Amino acid sequence: MTELTHFSPEGASRMVDVSSKGETDRSATASGLIRMRAETLALILDRKVAKGDVFEVARLAGIMAAKRTGDLIPLCHPLGIDGVVVDFEVIDAISVKVEATVTVRGRTGVEMEALTAVSVAALTIYDMCKAVDRGMSVDRVRLEAKSGGRSGDYRREPDPGGSA
Amino acid sequence: MTELTHFSPEGASRMVDVSSKGETDRSATASGLIRMRAETLALILDRKVAKGDVFEVARLAGIMAAKRTGDLIPLCHPLGIDGVVVDFEVIDAISVKVEATVTVRGRTGVEMEALTAVSVAALTIYDMCKAVDRGMSVDRVRLEAKSGGRSGDYRREPDPGGSA
Amino acid sequence: MTELTHFSPEGASRMVDVSSKGETDRSATASGLIRMRAETLALILDRKVAKGDVFEVARLAGIMAAKRTGDLIPLCHPLGIDGVVVDFEVIDAISVKVEATVTVRGRTGVEMEALTAVSVAALTIYDMCKAVDRGMSVDRVRLEAKSGGRSGDYRREPDPGGSA
Amino acid sequence: MTELTHFSPEGASRMVDVSSKGETDRSATASGLIRMRAETLALILDRKVAKGDVFEVARLAGIMAAKRTGDLIPLCHPLGIDGVVVDFEVIDAISVKVEATVTVRGRTGVEMEALTAVSVAALTIYDMCKAVDRGMSVDRVRLEAKSGGRSGDYRREPDPGGSA
Amino acid sequence: MTELTHFSPEGASRMVDVSSKGETDRSATASGLIRMRAETLALILDRKVAKGDVFEVARLAGIMAAKRTGDLIPLCHPLGIDGVVVDFEVIDAISVKVEATVTVRGRTGVEMEALTAVSVAALTIYDMCKAVDRGMSVDRVRLEAKSGGRSGDYRREPDPGGSA
Amino acid sequence: MTELTHFSPEGASRMVDVSSKGETDRSATASGLIRMRAETLALILDRKVAKGDVFEVARLAGIMAAKRTGDLIPLCHPLGIDGVVVDFEVIDAISVKVEATVTVRGRTGVEMEALTAVSVAALTIYDMCKAVDRGMSVDRVRLEAKSGGRSGDYRREPDPGGSA
Repeated sequence: MTELTHFSPEGASRMVDVSSKGETDRSATASGLIRMRAETLALILDRKVAKGDVFEVARLAGIMAAKRTGDLIPLCHPLGIDGVVVDFEVIDAISVKVEATVTVRGRTGVEMEALTAVSVAALTIYDMCKAVDRGMSVDRVRLEAKSGGRSGDYRREPDPGGSA
Repeated sequence: MTELTHFSPEGASRMVDVSSKGETDRSATASGLIRMRAETLALILDRKVAKGDVFEVARLAGIMAAKRTGDLIPLCHPLGIDGVVVDFEVIDAISVKVEATVTVRGRTGVEMEALTAVSVAALTIYDMCKAVDRGMSVDRVRLEAKSGGRSGDYRREPDPGGSA
Repeated sequence: MTELTHFSPEGASRMVDVSSKGETDRSATASGLIRMRAETLALILDRKVAKGDVFEVARLAGIMAAKRTGDLIPLCHPLGIDGVVVDFEVIDAISVKVEATVTVRGRTGVEMEALTAVSVAALTIYDMCKAVDRGMSVDRVRLEAKSGGRSGDYRREPDPGGSA
Repeated sequence: MTELTHFSPEGASRMVDVSSKGETDRSATASGLIRMRAETLALILDRKVAKGDVFEVARLAGIMAAKRTGDLIPLCHPLGIDGVVVDFEVIDAISVKVEATVTVRGRTGVEMEALTAVSVAALTIYDMCKAVDRGMSVDRVRLEAKSGGRSGDYRREPDPGGSA
Repeated sequence: MTELTHFSPEGASRMVDVSSKGETDRSATASGLIRMRAETLALILDRKVAKGDVFEVARLAGIMAAKRTGDLIPLCHPLGIDGVVVDFEVIDAISVKVEATVTVRGRTGVEMEALTAVSVAALTIYDMCKAVDRGMSVDRVRLEAKSGGRSGDYRREPDPGGSA
Repeated sequence: MTELTHFSPEGASRMVDVSSKGETDRSATASGLIRMRAETLALILDRKVAKGDVFEVARLAGIMAAKRTGDLIPLCHPLGIDGVVVDFEVIDAISVKVEATVTVRGRTGVEMEALTAVSVAALTIYDMCKAVDRGMSVDRVRLEAKSGGRSGDYRREPDPGGSA
């Protein structure tokens, strides 16, 4: 495929009609990193449980954002998604990996829902820590895998070097 | 400051009370990159104007998302923002820089609005091109600068190497 | 069942995946009371029809809120509900019963939609009458009955004393 | 049919229960006109492509509004619509026709989604041009055609005179 | 003014920065007509009060839509509006006039809020009556008057013929 | 005051114009109880910290709902609230008290925001525990206190018996 289906042949943006596609089980997993100063990550990990869990707030933000993807991405189909999980993994002293998996039985995929969950979860971490670290960065937000639908399964090729 | 103000001393999340802060003119600029295959970026640039402008769709998505930041980021204050611009710059054969500036006269800053605009604009580019390139990546989403408010001005330190 | 399914075994909140459940006809009825001074209820009943119907405003608020339940309750599935009715019954000189029934053909129940409709309808009555009676109270918001789905039918046991 | 089904026999507004209706392929097309001064339309057409495309902004607004119809129209069923296109046609020196077609496989029609897309697209044109022409007018917003569902197909009778 | 301020000189859409404008008292009134078969209007008027008031449902829809204008119109500033009234007047056997007035103390006008209230109120009437009359039409949605702000007051010139 | 200001003299619902009121510091505190089986409350308290904190999810839901009050309560003014805290207190073996305080510098009070936060927080607890206890009940949702604004301060009279 070498065309952008979100435009008509005349160049008008459109929401592509999927009503003739059958409903299938679909799943998509996206991930991203949020990088910060080591002191900031230590502060998050330190407080966890006893004094407020940044990751849990970010997780809920990501789950709720996944439900609103169709409101945010202009040409994305509104979808009654069937499941969302958002997880966090401390990769090293300055990096946290955010991963979201969304499932639906429907006519279109849920890549955008998974990517939106990751992005909003990462931004929420930023929001909660910005008073102590304005230099945080969100990186490598990308699709890890998807399954279901006419275009078949997809799995991202591993990074050359290896990690994450 | 070494504390996360979004939690009470007991660890309960909260929206910090800003009602006693004065209204000042505030501005925040955030940026991010979206990376893709060279063929994908060529396709976007090729179609621009004549057959549908991916950047214009993404720009509107970013502007509209900035207005809804308070709905997405759990502890972020709802704000009647006063201005938003979102711009795109082709950095090299595979990278587009997204930059958003948000202004408000108000009691809290607009960093989250600018970061949300950048993230949703980048995700919209992903959405519009995902049928031809599932390997796109959103990177370096970060705050470039802010002004106004009690915590004063901020400008991100330049990257060691230089660019972007 | 003795577990809270909205958490993973590790304690992370999640939206439970229901994509493998079949679609069935589901219905849920919830109710609640709003209590006020006798003068306030008299004022509502007096004005009804001729000078503005508080219950009709509250009814529409409840119906519209039912549609937005997935936006409000963090781990609740977004649902394209198929029907909503909201009714009011004057129980005694100071109490109005609000009852909502929601129906859907879907993979999850609509208890939360019915409870949200009742709560928002009751709050709307509060809003409309608060200038004359700040002491109103919303009570006994609870599930009356549900049908459909794997967990089977449910009907609330009658109150010991009897009424409402 | 001589009754308003959105009210119960007692006159209470309600969202009619459609859960027992089967899912069918449905489509609806609505249209409307926006009229303005000839200079305003010339300005829009002039700028198109090179200096900002008013119609493209309006088109996206219409598409996004179609997705939110259930949030706006109180007794309208929330629907996960399957496709939306919005088009503009310059009718004469002072009139632009807006046309929207919405498709869904579902239990209720999408007339309101198509009408909402047309209305919001037209209002967006108003918004973008209001600084130069406050006298614009939105006219003839109406249903052109619908198909699918129990009430069968509908096609608006042509205007007596002919045009539009 | 002969430029469209919602675009930058390069043609990029933007939300114009109003943070330097002072807050003033602003008001805007918009109106529109909804036309239908005489039997439909008779049915609405007949039922009013006793069996369900179409206008009251439409009025609430218009008021609620005014509050969400910034979510619907892409480049419109989000505003915490201070007041909304929506009224209906039966003009003749087939026409109802909808009029909305919105007030705010703020930095931008509320024309779009008033026009959105009128449009959504009219669409709600359409929704409630569409089962009996699919040929209804919304016409003459336009700004009647505005006051406040730098661009000064505006009052629509009367129609040549006179009425409405 | 013996009138319902949300209706015009003719009985039309309206959002009362507050643009002429001055901005003052306002605060409102609301509370409510959620009652459940002792086993359910034990399960919540048991899991807290280690295996998922029901109260923290409910707290965030309440805070986010407070921000959306103007979207839910039809005649309520949209408000850019300045602060929200939501707290939980275990009253006895079967009851949890939810309390929310909202602050704003603005032209209208925040009673509805505080009541909405309490209601949605309580409903979220219901949602998370409903699989183990469908008989939970939300009670005594009411205003505890308000300050600021023309109508002056208010403090609820203590319950006759004493508690809660």
